[in-house]
Amino acid sequence: MWDSDRKAMIRILAISGSLRRSSSNSRLLRAAANLAPKAVEITLYDGLADLPHFNPDLEGSEPSAVLDFRLQLERSDGVLISSPEYAHGVPGSLKNALDWVVGSGELDDKPVALLNASLMATYAQASLNETIAVMSARVIKEASLTIPLQGKHLDESGIVADPELSRLVLTAIAEFATAIANLVPNANAFLD
Amino acid sequence: MWDSDRKAMIRILAISGSLRRSSSNSRLLRAAANLAPKAVEITLYDGLADLPHFNPDLEGSEPSAVLDFRLQLERSDGVLISSPEYAHGVPGSLKNALDWVVGSGELDDKPVALLNASLMATYAQASLNETIAVMSARVIKEASLTIPLQGKHLDESGIVADPELSRLVLTAIAEFATAIANLVPNANAFLD
Repeated sequence: MWDSDRKAMIRILAISGSLRRSSSNSRLLRAAANLAPKAVEITLYDGLADLPHFNPDLEGSEPSAVLDFRLQLERSDGVLISSPEYAHGVPGSLKNALDWVVGSGELDDKPVALLNASLMATYAQASLNETIAVMSARVIKEASLTIPLQGKHLDESGIVADPELSRLVLTAIAEFATAIANLVPNANAFLD
Repeated sequence: MWDSDRKAMIRILAISGSLRRSSSNSRLLRAAANLAPKAVEITLYDGLADLPHFNPDLEGSEPSAVLDFRLQLERSDGVLISSPEYAHGVPGSLKNALDWVVGSGELDDKPVALLNASLMATYAQASLNETIAVMSARVIKEASLTIPLQGKHLDESGIVADPELSRLVLTAIAEFATAIANLVPNANAFLD
């Protein structure tokens, strides 16, 4: 049952694996932020390009960009990732961000959903799945949908306006929010 | 037959996947540089941490660190990589460097050997192999040896001094140089 007295929202940090301005993956995440119900707040992380390259020697004296990234992860109830595939692998910049939290543990037990904007990007998706799982995060398979954008050249408004695509995005959000509500004690069980 | 009149050497660019000062992978590559015969020059690439995060929007106006990396690759007859595995994947910083040359093509047809300093690092090795192969480089399997350093805490002198390890490193170099001499028309066929 909907608990309208609770102020807590489900807070999701969204991470695009592409730094390209007109990235399909970033557009997909912005569409998800627009489509999400009021009780689900999806915020795009915009610091990927500012993270230094991971160096174990810096652990203990991490630059502020790293500390900020960890804080944003810690404050989220779940992490939504959408990434392109580069040369049959995960983009280095996205993997670098993950490398920074292997030791510090912000992804431990964190619900994570992996959207995929392309039916072709199977290597990166499998590799991300493996990495996220070994980092002790909880990959939510029901929310990890492929939302085929390739060749469609849609911006976020176009995705929102497309009945089939927006239905898929909403399904992913609903599945993710349900899983989070069941897994994270402090998250608002907005779908009860 | 050895052609002592030829000045051309086989030039190998070595890339460590770790930025850690006392990285086993960097030590392994420095040991390889020390053990290499005179006709094989192994140079460690030291710019990994200075490469910006790959962004397709920057293609055509790449920062100088990127242009320098591409030039060093282009001038090499082969590329020798040794990388740790982070969270069952390739370190982001190493993958980021590779992402920068997918489009520009410096690895097309380039002989590449993947050393592995740990028997445990099978995910990263498989993923690197896949990425390097799809980038149209020539992975030289005979030179892609595992040289087990884990738990040994050896610096490069220690690796050079260890009979079994140095034998493995020399085997990898000899196999790599032979393959390069057979594949690269301008490389010095020093093992003929």
